[in-house]
Amino acid sequence: MTDPRIERISDRQAIAELLAEYCRALDLMDLDAIAGIFTADCRVEYGPEERLTSHGAAGVAKSLERMWRWARTSHHLSNIQIEFESTDAARAVSYVIAWHERPDGSTATVLGQYHDRLQRRDEGWCIAERRMLMNGNTAGFTVNLFRTPRRPAPEGWVAPNIDRPVEDKA
Amino acid sequence: MTDPRIERISDRQAIAELLAEYCRALDLMDLDAIAGIFTADCRVEYGPEERLTSHGAAGVAKSLERMWRWARTSHHLSNIQIEFESTDAARAVSYVIAWHERPDGSTATVLGQYHDRLQRRDEGWCIAERRMLMNGNTAGFTVNLFRTPRRPAPEGWVAPNIDRPVEDKA
Amino acid sequence: MTDPRIERISDRQAIAELLAEYCRALDLMDLDAIAGIFTADCRVEYGPEERLTSHGAAGVAKSLERMWRWARTSHHLSNIQIEFESTDAARAVSYVIAWHERPDGSTATVLGQYHDRLQRRDEGWCIAERRMLMNGNTAGFTVNLFRTPRRPAPEGWVAPNIDRPVEDKA
Repeated sequence: MTDPRIERISDRQAIAELLAEYCRALDLMDLDAIAGIFTADCRVEYGPEERLTSHGAAGVAKSLERMWRWARTSHHLSNIQIEFESTDAARAVSYVIAWHERPDGSTATVLGQYHDRLQRRDEGWCIAERRMLMNGNTAGFTVNLFRTPRRPAPEGWVAPNIDRPVEDKA
Repeated sequence: MTDPRIERISDRQAIAELLAEYCRALDLMDLDAIAGIFTADCRVEYGPEERLTSHGAAGVAKSLERMWRWARTSHHLSNIQIEFESTDAARAVSYVIAWHERPDGSTATVLGQYHDRLQRRDEGWCIAERRMLMNGNTAGFTVNLFRTPRRPAPEGWVAPNIDRPVEDKA
Repeated sequence: MTDPRIERISDRQAIAELLAEYCRALDLMDLDAIAGIFTADCRVEYGPEERLTSHGAAGVAKSLERMWRWARTSHHLSNIQIEFESTDAARAVSYVIAWHERPDGSTATVLGQYHDRLQRRDEGWCIAERRMLMNGNTAGFTVNLFRTPRRPAPEGWVAPNIDRPVEDKA
């Protein structure tokens, strides 16, 4: 009898590698490989504007042609959390540092999250839904992405004095 | 018979997700979720000053209110190494890139390590001890964190000429 | 009977921790630990010049003395993808953010990939071949590393207008 936990562990590894493969393919601008990562009926949303939403694996690959406006990119994925909804469906949250350089050498970096729904297909796990949230960005990045919702400080909160040494060494 | 390695593998995944959950909750300023990550009697140390040490899950969550002095943060965790001390106790070392932005738009980034002791409780793995070490930081970050101890070059060591091309293309 | 997938899963974890251990040891300048990560007959290539290639575990450790020209470093590893060629041989691709600071406080960051071949030895998994590719770098980094090959835009491709809001809020 196979321990069903082995299936789950293998599925987690497969999903983690899929998320990494997206980054690798994107940084190579291998858009065919990108298309293979998504389901035929997927939905990908980067922001509230229609032009920041894509449908279907081919549509996602097509829309990512926009990455050619950068001369170089590097997408660093981490903080992967996965929950299974069934044997063949999962949700994943991951973090990404997305570094972009323009042909003129100027750069733009996004620090964000991918919130994904994944489905198992015959060819393996695929992304069926992706929503990107932006935790932070450098001034050079100006795309209107969704923002990560952060709880505000309670009214009257006063910042502690923590950014300076208690006393000078002098 | 269950293979005991499956337990260990599942424990590793649970610990890795716990470390990621800390980052996710912190970037949302969900301090209730933060409290759930630590043991009731935990000890967390960021630096040599008393004000950089917290005790107990509630104390850690309370002390992290200081993160509200930032307008946005993003904590990217990687390089996870885990060793088990027993079935219910483990040590973990992980790396973090902690990006912070002030309300005025200026930023401060720390590149560091978390050295954690973890314990299994009824509700799952929790952090019982955390010590942060700073590998590096940008000029904007001025908190007096512990420094990663790096071996110095032997006396008389001379830097190789590696940062320039062998010859000009001209 | 042991499920052979458990071996593979354990091997993946061991390899992931080995890649993290390299970063940890390097940031400590623990060159003895670095030597223990590579095979006695390994080959490590960072760029097309001979001075950017090392041979053998001792040679790699020796060549990495060059890292002492930095005052502090921090190597953040992620995006690990592993394929097994046999029970005792594997290929891995991973991503790294390598941050370096000079004694004068200036910094240089590389965003890159490690392409590794790994072999199982008596003492565990070791790196037998490593080739580094550079996805991107800050202006301060001037070592002549291999570049990640990125597909160019088709001729006549026109960048979409995506970096500005559709309309002003005014």
